[in-house]
Amino acid sequence: MLIHAIWPSLKRWRTVGLGPVSFVYSFRRRTRISKGRTVQAALPVPAASITDGSRTPETAGLAVIVGVGPGFGHALAERLAREGFALVLVARNAAGLSPLVERLERHGTVVATIGCDATAEAQVEGLFKRIVRDFGTPALVVYSIQDFGPGQVLDVSTAAFESCWRHNCFGAFLVSREAGRAMRPVGAGSIVLVGSTSSIIGRAGHLNLAVGKFGQRALAQVLARELWPEGIHVAHVMIDADISEGTVESHPQADPDHIAYSILAIHRQPKSAWTSELDLRPAKEKFWEHC
Amino acid sequence: MLIHAIWPSLKRWRTVGLGPVSFVYSFRRRTRISKGRTVQAALPVPAASITDGSRTPETAGLAVIVGVGPGFGHALAERLAREGFALVLVARNAAGLSPLVERLERHGTVVATIGCDATAEAQVEGLFKRIVRDFGTPALVVYSIQDFGPGQVLDVSTAAFESCWRHNCFGAFLVSREAGRAMRPVGAGSIVLVGSTSSIIGRAGHLNLAVGKFGQRALAQVLARELWPEGIHVAHVMIDADISEGTVESHPQADPDHIAYSILAIHRQPKSAWTSELDLRPAKEKFWEHC
Amino acid sequence: MLIHAIWPSLKRWRTVGLGPVSFVYSFRRRTRISKGRTVQAALPVPAASITDGSRTPETAGLAVIVGVGPGFGHALAERLAREGFALVLVARNAAGLSPLVERLERHGTVVATIGCDATAEAQVEGLFKRIVRDFGTPALVVYSIQDFGPGQVLDVSTAAFESCWRHNCFGAFLVSREAGRAMRPVGAGSIVLVGSTSSIIGRAGHLNLAVGKFGQRALAQVLARELWPEGIHVAHVMIDADISEGTVESHPQADPDHIAYSILAIHRQPKSAWTSELDLRPAKEKFWEHC
Amino acid sequence: MLIHAIWPSLKRWRTVGLGPVSFVYSFRRRTRISKGRTVQAALPVPAASITDGSRTPETAGLAVIVGVGPGFGHALAERLAREGFALVLVARNAAGLSPLVERLERHGTVVATIGCDATAEAQVEGLFKRIVRDFGTPALVVYSIQDFGPGQVLDVSTAAFESCWRHNCFGAFLVSREAGRAMRPVGAGSIVLVGSTSSIIGRAGHLNLAVGKFGQRALAQVLARELWPEGIHVAHVMIDADISEGTVESHPQADPDHIAYSILAIHRQPKSAWTSELDLRPAKEKFWEHC
Repeated sequence: MLIHAIWPSLKRWRTVGLGPVSFVYSFRRRTRISKGRTVQAALPVPAASITDGSRTPETAGLAVIVGVGPGFGHALAERLAREGFALVLVARNAAGLSPLVERLERHGTVVATIGCDATAEAQVEGLFKRIVRDFGTPALVVYSIQDFGPGQVLDVSTAAFESCWRHNCFGAFLVSREAGRAMRPVGAGSIVLVGSTSSIIGRAGHLNLAVGKFGQRALAQVLARELWPEGIHVAHVMIDADISEGTVESHPQADPDHIAYSILAIHRQPKSAWTSELDLRPAKEKFWEHC
Repeated sequence: MLIHAIWPSLKRWRTVGLGPVSFVYSFRRRTRISKGRTVQAALPVPAASITDGSRTPETAGLAVIVGVGPGFGHALAERLAREGFALVLVARNAAGLSPLVERLERHGTVVATIGCDATAEAQVEGLFKRIVRDFGTPALVVYSIQDFGPGQVLDVSTAAFESCWRHNCFGAFLVSREAGRAMRPVGAGSIVLVGSTSSIIGRAGHLNLAVGKFGQRALAQVLARELWPEGIHVAHVMIDADISEGTVESHPQADPDHIAYSILAIHRQPKSAWTSELDLRPAKEKFWEHC
Repeated sequence: MLIHAIWPSLKRWRTVGLGPVSFVYSFRRRTRISKGRTVQAALPVPAASITDGSRTPETAGLAVIVGVGPGFGHALAERLAREGFALVLVARNAAGLSPLVERLERHGTVVATIGCDATAEAQVEGLFKRIVRDFGTPALVVYSIQDFGPGQVLDVSTAAFESCWRHNCFGAFLVSREAGRAMRPVGAGSIVLVGSTSSIIGRAGHLNLAVGKFGQRALAQVLARELWPEGIHVAHVMIDADISEGTVESHPQADPDHIAYSILAIHRQPKSAWTSELDLRPAKEKFWEHC
Repeated sequence: MLIHAIWPSLKRWRTVGLGPVSFVYSFRRRTRISKGRTVQAALPVPAASITDGSRTPETAGLAVIVGVGPGFGHALAERLAREGFALVLVARNAAGLSPLVERLERHGTVVATIGCDATAEAQVEGLFKRIVRDFGTPALVVYSIQDFGPGQVLDVSTAAFESCWRHNCFGAFLVSREAGRAMRPVGAGSIVLVGSTSSIIGRAGHLNLAVGKFGQRALAQVLARELWPEGIHVAHVMIDADISEGTVESHPQADPDHIAYSILAIHRQPKSAWTSELDLRPAKEKFWEHC
């Protein structure tokens, strides 16, 4: 098709000078955002208890997961539901989360889904405004979007390099900033950024993952230093593992529910002994050899 | 006194050649080991459930703390007791632990204390033989001994350098090795080594702490790679903080019970997502500026 | 002025859906690229010796410096000139380099300047095509562009975040990729990326520097693993210091000529013992407390 | 033989209580120290120029190498000789260095050898007293002793663990401390500690190397922070490679002369841009997978 033939050319950034300013433009594949499912007004959203940060088994608070994939995202949602959180699940294809939502609701969890491109500033700003207005201040926000296409540096395209960075780092910045802005007035909450082996080692063939993940780690370090004193717990979790998606594999895999265990343990850490960074991998896994 | 005048000379290592071997000797201040308090035979030590690694609320298993100081060690013992562990508390001055033991026993915890110099090989070997024989295989062993005297490298005495290393690193090796030997047959258990800022940064004036703590971190990394596949969870916890001992201070302090929370969370991590290393500090603390 | 009033709004990325694609656009302050000064045809450019990578005192080869600021860039150019390199100096305002060029030429150095925005893909591609065509394959390429505006994460604007990343990381990717593509056919050459304290520590207030510098470090690590086996030496130099620009300051400063010494030493390392990463700071400076 | 049968028992540390002190003793294989070769009085030792730290081609100064093995140590001695240094070569078997010394002297280098066990405090103190008295203050001191026997932690003997630490870390402390004490009065000089992959990664099977190398890295970090302001350049060089000893191998090897190049480059760094840590490996080597 014509679109495929001219695509590499369309994706290049172009610049037109207009006196003292430049007009910068490019074409991207259109991101389809599907609508989420609003929680019915009749459902007992425990807005007050969420906002004041109290964490009883009945109202653990509101958790927002940005990037709900079939492995880790689903498992995290299910564990948080079991532990009493109300949930806002954010994904581009929010409509695709319906089976998960139905399962969660059958067990009494309050769940909303919102369609959002986490790399688009206006959408992320709108996302958190809507969450705070409709559900209250989140107690826990997890950013778990990852994008990667392998390749040697000399062969990497600029568009792929930049797109991966937008998902691995820029989106984390937008989400963290808006989450931090929402949490600051209440002086409480946790922001967890999900990293990987490529957060600390730039392996051959992994440029497009490592540049963003290193950047996200910088973000997590700066955020921790700036927001911990405000009462907001920022942590960076490095998953040095393949995450199981239910298939049987010969190599060790991390059960996503087990990863969720540690994210929750971090969220619950008492304030005088917080963690900024930890690694997670299966007992039988090699150390620091994943992507 | 005479002993103080000649002490620096007595502490030097001396060597006498005897044909193909050397006789190496020195004098040390005598380590006083006070006897511990054996648990009465009538007390219900849940040996079977401890050995098979099951962790029900009633019998969380047996925890061994090596180095029970007034701040962290006491708080860890109290939290583990609350969570249902039977305890073996190890210290040179085991007799001094009596008030703690009485408090723990009033709440029904099974507690034994054993006097032991953790830097003496034969004593550590004997310690774990006795623990396994009398109480079963430990589910959790925590090494929390630290020794430090500040000073610039050019002024540091060899005896102080070596003594600090023995407490910060060599004892951790002896305890980990014997704990690992005890746990390997059951293929379960956790070994937690307690580090500090000086585990990863060698700060001016901190030679005697950093050399041992860096070494202990190497030990933790090697142990994790070797013992995780055997089912034994080795983790290194870096406390980047002053630990509260109940006094009021103007700077932020880590509540030792809050540190204990995270050690327990690590011990309970499910096996497909274990952590090898994490940091702990108060929300309002500067990052990586402690000893 | 009107432009200042509406500027923050103009800088935002906007998206217009066009069926299966999106049109993404924004306005930027126009980057003024001034023309460089072409080397006269009569000048004895030692193209052959540059291309085959030989490094005799007379013809050390061709060095390309991307980002020639008044402190470090000038000093590096002067040291490389003294050591016998022919030079291509790259800056947006190439015309502004004339005084430096005249000084260098008086001592017999072959120097060309080229105006280029190192964050614009097409310009960087054109830059290296022109260099190879006109002067031969570079022996040494140094990327020394840095951009930073301090600020807390919650206050950082998206436009500033992205602009800093483009200069600190994306430009380094474009320049390294094109330099690597140019060097691969000859199987020789050095690429040096200039980092800072913020390459390994994300300090409070330094988000916009750290995200790009961490990312550049990832780039350097991946490049080293991929290009060293091809004979191309990639190294990352972390300058943990203020660099002197000739003014007198009360705090320690790194003489840029001294930094240039080590970049040259790295370039000259024999191939069986290459360095991938080193730090540089004044003898009297605190460790890892710069930006 | 009887000695072999009872050896493991002899090597254990034993303690005898004597009132307030303990007598601690053990047996070791006797370290044979062979006498070195004193430089003839008639030889033109440039003591003055060495002491004042001037570095002209004729009198680069005095270099001391502690641990002169057949690969790296010999190559370092030969490169330093070529560059105009007078040399003191230190080894337990100083007599065995005669062939090297004769070769160096034929080219006019002033060389002395001194037999010394670098892990014995009194010997190291005597070594530096003698060097300063007979030859002047060293300009460069390199510690390149390494000791390692592989093995899993649970199988490592206490004697081997401690012996490796003495060579990899304790000797580095003794030599650095005495070198620093000698250099401080002149406010100049370089101390280079030679590390390895095991300086920063504790790999399975490498306990006895990693614990000492991590400790040596801590030493180097503390020394750098304390001695740089005094004008003494301390650096830690991590050799992530097999070092060639002249045999042909299928895997990449670092030419020891190439390692020597970088040690000399570090020694010559101008004072406003010093390096504290760098890695060295062959272009075709994998990163961080050596011992």
